[in-house]
Amino acid sequence: MNNMALGMTERLKPIHAAVRDMIRDEIAPASEEFLAEVSKGERWVYTDRQRDILEGLKAKAKSRGLWNFWLTDSERGSGLTIVEYAYLAEEMGKTHLGAETFNCSAPDTGNMEVFERYCTPEQQKPWLQPLLDGEIRSAYLMTEPDVASSDATNIAMSCVADGDDYVLNGEKWWATGAGDPRCKIYIVMVKTGGDDQPKHQRHSMILVPADTPGVEVMRALTVYGEDDAPHGHMHIRFTDVRVPKANLILGEGRGFEIAQGRLGPGRIHHCMRAIGHAEAALELMCKRAMRREAFGKKLAQLGANFDIIAECRMDIEMARLLCLKAAWMMDQGDAKAAAPWISQIKVVAPNMALKVVDEAVQMHGGGGISQDVPLARMWTHLRTLRLADGPDAVHRRQVARWELRKHTQEKV
Amino acid sequence: MNNMALGMTERLKPIHAAVRDMIRDEIAPASEEFLAEVSKGERWVYTDRQRDILEGLKAKAKSRGLWNFWLTDSERGSGLTIVEYAYLAEEMGKTHLGAETFNCSAPDTGNMEVFERYCTPEQQKPWLQPLLDGEIRSAYLMTEPDVASSDATNIAMSCVADGDDYVLNGEKWWATGAGDPRCKIYIVMVKTGGDDQPKHQRHSMILVPADTPGVEVMRALTVYGEDDAPHGHMHIRFTDVRVPKANLILGEGRGFEIAQGRLGPGRIHHCMRAIGHAEAALELMCKRAMRREAFGKKLAQLGANFDIIAECRMDIEMARLLCLKAAWMMDQGDAKAAAPWISQIKVVAPNMALKVVDEAVQMHGGGGISQDVPLARMWTHLRTLRLADGPDAVHRRQVARWELRKHTQEKV
Amino acid sequence: MNNMALGMTERLKPIHAAVRDMIRDEIAPASEEFLAEVSKGERWVYTDRQRDILEGLKAKAKSRGLWNFWLTDSERGSGLTIVEYAYLAEEMGKTHLGAETFNCSAPDTGNMEVFERYCTPEQQKPWLQPLLDGEIRSAYLMTEPDVASSDATNIAMSCVADGDDYVLNGEKWWATGAGDPRCKIYIVMVKTGGDDQPKHQRHSMILVPADTPGVEVMRALTVYGEDDAPHGHMHIRFTDVRVPKANLILGEGRGFEIAQGRLGPGRIHHCMRAIGHAEAALELMCKRAMRREAFGKKLAQLGANFDIIAECRMDIEMARLLCLKAAWMMDQGDAKAAAPWISQIKVVAPNMALKVVDEAVQMHGGGGISQDVPLARMWTHLRTLRLADGPDAVHRRQVARWELRKHTQEKV
Amino acid sequence: MNNMALGMTERLKPIHAAVRDMIRDEIAPASEEFLAEVSKGERWVYTDRQRDILEGLKAKAKSRGLWNFWLTDSERGSGLTIVEYAYLAEEMGKTHLGAETFNCSAPDTGNMEVFERYCTPEQQKPWLQPLLDGEIRSAYLMTEPDVASSDATNIAMSCVADGDDYVLNGEKWWATGAGDPRCKIYIVMVKTGGDDQPKHQRHSMILVPADTPGVEVMRALTVYGEDDAPHGHMHIRFTDVRVPKANLILGEGRGFEIAQGRLGPGRIHHCMRAIGHAEAALELMCKRAMRREAFGKKLAQLGANFDIIAECRMDIEMARLLCLKAAWMMDQGDAKAAAPWISQIKVVAPNMALKVVDEAVQMHGGGGISQDVPLARMWTHLRTLRLADGPDAVHRRQVARWELRKHTQEKV
Repeated sequence: MNNMALGMTERLKPIHAAVRDMIRDEIAPASEEFLAEVSKGERWVYTDRQRDILEGLKAKAKSRGLWNFWLTDSERGSGLTIVEYAYLAEEMGKTHLGAETFNCSAPDTGNMEVFERYCTPEQQKPWLQPLLDGEIRSAYLMTEPDVASSDATNIAMSCVADGDDYVLNGEKWWATGAGDPRCKIYIVMVKTGGDDQPKHQRHSMILVPADTPGVEVMRALTVYGEDDAPHGHMHIRFTDVRVPKANLILGEGRGFEIAQGRLGPGRIHHCMRAIGHAEAALELMCKRAMRREAFGKKLAQLGANFDIIAECRMDIEMARLLCLKAAWMMDQGDAKAAAPWISQIKVVAPNMALKVVDEAVQMHGGGGISQDVPLARMWTHLRTLRLADGPDAVHRRQVARWELRKHTQEKV
Repeated sequence: MNNMALGMTERLKPIHAAVRDMIRDEIAPASEEFLAEVSKGERWVYTDRQRDILEGLKAKAKSRGLWNFWLTDSERGSGLTIVEYAYLAEEMGKTHLGAETFNCSAPDTGNMEVFERYCTPEQQKPWLQPLLDGEIRSAYLMTEPDVASSDATNIAMSCVADGDDYVLNGEKWWATGAGDPRCKIYIVMVKTGGDDQPKHQRHSMILVPADTPGVEVMRALTVYGEDDAPHGHMHIRFTDVRVPKANLILGEGRGFEIAQGRLGPGRIHHCMRAIGHAEAALELMCKRAMRREAFGKKLAQLGANFDIIAECRMDIEMARLLCLKAAWMMDQGDAKAAAPWISQIKVVAPNMALKVVDEAVQMHGGGGISQDVPLARMWTHLRTLRLADGPDAVHRRQVARWELRKHTQEKV
Repeated sequence: MNNMALGMTERLKPIHAAVRDMIRDEIAPASEEFLAEVSKGERWVYTDRQRDILEGLKAKAKSRGLWNFWLTDSERGSGLTIVEYAYLAEEMGKTHLGAETFNCSAPDTGNMEVFERYCTPEQQKPWLQPLLDGEIRSAYLMTEPDVASSDATNIAMSCVADGDDYVLNGEKWWATGAGDPRCKIYIVMVKTGGDDQPKHQRHSMILVPADTPGVEVMRALTVYGEDDAPHGHMHIRFTDVRVPKANLILGEGRGFEIAQGRLGPGRIHHCMRAIGHAEAALELMCKRAMRREAFGKKLAQLGANFDIIAECRMDIEMARLLCLKAAWMMDQGDAKAAAPWISQIKVVAPNMALKVVDEAVQMHGGGGISQDVPLARMWTHLRTLRLADGPDAVHRRQVARWELRKHTQEKV
Repeated sequence: MNNMALGMTERLKPIHAAVRDMIRDEIAPASEEFLAEVSKGERWVYTDRQRDILEGLKAKAKSRGLWNFWLTDSERGSGLTIVEYAYLAEEMGKTHLGAETFNCSAPDTGNMEVFERYCTPEQQKPWLQPLLDGEIRSAYLMTEPDVASSDATNIAMSCVADGDDYVLNGEKWWATGAGDPRCKIYIVMVKTGGDDQPKHQRHSMILVPADTPGVEVMRALTVYGEDDAPHGHMHIRFTDVRVPKANLILGEGRGFEIAQGRLGPGRIHHCMRAIGHAEAALELMCKRAMRREAFGKKLAQLGANFDIIAECRMDIEMARLLCLKAAWMMDQGDAKAAAPWISQIKVVAPNMALKVVDEAVQMHGGGGISQDVPLARMWTHLRTLRLADGPDAVHRRQVARWELRKHTQEKV
């Protein structure tokens, strides 16, 4: 019984220091070079230089034993608790290549969890070890352009049994990471059941190799004008895509069960990385406030800037504590009890970080919105989190229903 | 090394349950009767019925060993940590007589800490034990009407040595509790030093019995129209008030040192009681939302009410965790390191609770602002906390300076 | 066609100057004396001094022709447009007796409009002229404690025909002004129709003299602890209250029609007085900010105070323009077209003014919440406006439905 | 004396209808094609198709007499007031090519005003008529990367007399429109005076043709990742750039005088276009809310969406009225009296529009942040307005100082 201990453990401290220092001293400068290198003409390939930077960082991290921290409750993993991992995820959020260097990036971590927990050895075999080794990447195809995916029971991609195969037809979008040439395997949410079945048992998850005939990556979606190449958020069409029945995970109708298991930890990781974004932004803001002068004073001394800085600090502290509590709830092993806490942080952390980053942008003037400072990139990334894995409104609804049920026997 | 454990300890759980149950089952209903009883004609006396209610509750609590929990690091006390006490303070915040029943009310707790830590046995003798026993009450006289007390170096009450005595002249206001006929002793912040001395060494604290000649309680200040009788927030004039030199605490010029020691824990108590206010208000809000109907639906189902409820829940959780962290910092024994955390919660907790209570008021319609529901009373009390012990702006300033100092060697 | 002229007209300017100057120079100081005089023992009477102050001001105003400005489209009235009156209402909002001095206070103005527009000469006779002359006052009884009056179709007071009379039973609360001994006549919303009739045709308005047998003023409701004596917000019980059938206004089932006609202008008046509150508060805030010093600077120079002052100024300007536009819409004579504008200002103006007053309170420190500064009183009054005549949520709902209907043929 | 008439005049109505209809029916669809066409490889040229679209629209507008509306007080212009033009600017804000089609785009309008008002016929000759005819474009070079340009007295580009020439050295950035191959002339703010001269008389404006030797367009700045090609926000280096002394506008030291004259109307135009952005976003939001379904209901019926829509409507109305009032103040001819109103809208309008657009994005889910809906593009454009022509903080400061000066004789 650990009495809601939210601090760093002794065993975590040296790992945390190693991760933090590597991010600050090696990964952060390399990230800037990597981003500057992203090819303007051919966006969906890696240049040699990009590959060198990224694989060099990964090799270093791996050789130092800084690898796959996210695998918190598996013998394959690092043996950390989610609370412990959360502290590392925060550090990783501070720079662009922070998570990938340690093989801890989305959507691979969630996908690897699906392989680890829900797949047969036969399903795991071609994909899990290469993913754990950082040799390939993966995508998670859930959202569809034609339905309100905020209510995931709307998901409509057809998946029809035909002999020993399933045949898939439909469109998916916001397939994050599917632009990467290293992305080899998709986990796809499909509709296998009819309207006669219970609402949450109509869907399934199935493995579709990226090079299966009929899979067409149509285009990259932009996020406030940026295509995030070579990672990308892709719009993909499936036309008579045929995969063996053995690719279906767990069984027909169990898609929601898998989705719930997959999303919990991933949301905590996202949120803790958002805290890292916010900390990085606040640091930039403070340094700018002490360095830049106008009207004969440092910016820090002007207008509401003391109050703005203080509000940012307080908001970060509160959001971090809430994320740590949600992580601790997950560590207790009762996913259902943890669910409302995950919904809470899913709303709180991205909104808080957006606000902090926006204030940092404003403190930087024109430079803040440009490529010269990482703030604008942080902001657009954070903005996607208010939609990804459920928009704010859906999570608030969950929190409210849970609250009301404390006081009523009625259905809410 | 307890690794920032913010949960309830095993030893606390039965105490917490006893306090919580007594508040819910005995103190809350008695509080309503007590408030209804407050005399309209003679406001500054206790009726027999009021005395019976209050002393009856106190006797019960004492007999159950539920007493003086706030005295966290003294052999006279309960042996709880500040984190542990914080959980109890939250419960006490849920009803009007919650704190006093357990002899845990402001300003007495802070004043008893001054006696305990800074006073000589001779100074303690007439006052400390009766206070610990709940037989008398006390007031803390700091704020003055004529100076900006947010900057306490402005405090101006004159205190001039004359033979074996000091002679005090000036006015104090917001002397909370000084309207109570049981209030027997004041701790008074005075100016003993001149402008040639360092700014924070010009002030002292001195003991002034309430019945000293020259002390005149001029009037009760109202808080949004309410005089809070028989407790009261009094405006007091000192005219040639003479007390023995032995009444000076610690020595001339040490007023700020005492004030800092006094205010830290008290601010945590205030904030945790504010969390209790907010929890009580959210419960009222949810019950109302499920009970009342308009436009053919329960209020909960209308408009933004789900979102409002969810926001309140999230804001409460975050503020509570921050208060617990501040309490834990205090428990580590380094008051200076804890100071910025105390400033943070001093801003966060009252503002959060005000917002929650205001939403609860709105959900209640006309009843919410009236005497029929405890919300309006909660709100006005909480509103004073944004000013008492330093207005928000002063605490934000402290938080910002602490933040900026992480990134600069310069004075900020 | 006046092209949305929202400025002061030439004919208004001298009237406005006379009203503004009288308020600043005569009514404001008299208001403070009046409030200090309100009897603590016997709250529901007027002392001689109070009567002298109030009747003296009224006599002066009447003799100067500054009277009944609100009667904008009647030959009995001043001939002003609603836009013109709005400028005067703003001035009246700046001090406690501002509106009553010019016989422009709620709820009498709305009630007089009901008499003027909807009543027969017989119904008018005993009440209208005395009201227009400021000799008696009136109350409007709509809200009930047992139903959600935000949805006024819930109103339940029974009103049953019996011979030549109607017999009324039930309870009303928030009968503002009914504590005043001069209050002689109530306009009461009652339920005359059954559930078989259309929802908005089940209610009626009826005249009930205050001294009718069976009318029992049970108690004064408090607003954040203040009873607003001798005006008051009363809780009233009707037990077999019998009035002649001739007291029914317009006819059975026409209650909503009258309510709509009554509330439109009244809401504009309330909102413009709220603007006046906000202007008065901002002036107090600025003066305090330039007068008071802390940390070696004027408050104005500290922290976010420049930003706070600027935000208040901008918010006031925008809210005022919106109120003027709503008034102008009413002046065009199409109440239905004006309705969404009235809903808009009903949300915007009180919320804006609450925020401004709250900032002014904070700038004043402890004095701000006390009786020494008129801010706390302003705040509690403004807080009632977020509930009176429909809570914010109901008005937002109206605005949203109107907006959506621009883009859809469907029912919203 | 027009009594603050803020409505559309009769003469404006047909013009407004023509502009509105052309935008909705012709320019909006053409804008989408234009944007899709923007070359990915060669970004800083116009494709034939782009040129056809843009010049086709301009020719049509010109032939219909819909041209140069912004030139409000010149015989060369349309004869509209600023209030009248404001209504047109709002419409132009609704689509990407809205303003340029009517030769009303920034920064050319402001630059043409400088030519019109402050330049000699010789200075006007090569540039003004081609600009008025829409044949060339121009840029305004003020902001510099190395100084806090929010305080424009920091501007440092050196401009030294040498014989009949001035020689310029330094860097400018955020030269909006300077990426356009049609951009032929820069108006440049330079430092001509030394520290011995009054602070606001050290700077001058000078004409520099874009093709002058020594001018080097170094790179395009991105705005949240988007380079806004082929318009662009350019970073430009001046190395011994030599122009004739006759290119100096008005005389040495008069830069601030010109800047003030230039920026007033331009800020109103920006703000009214921001209102147009917000209206377009709200329309998209409402349509989406009625079209999309989740959880068995239209989005409009879910959660806080009614409240969100209502808040957006109210905020737009208020901001528009404030902009119209600022325009009306400018129309009165006293730029100094109008200045605080311009500062007010400069803060209010972009912030309001950002909020509305952000809510519209959220209502659209993933599509909202992508290239499929114009919202993300609107947002990034609006975000620049919180920095361009002075950041919010500087304008709030101005508003506050103006407010405080009403109540004090002291310097603030």
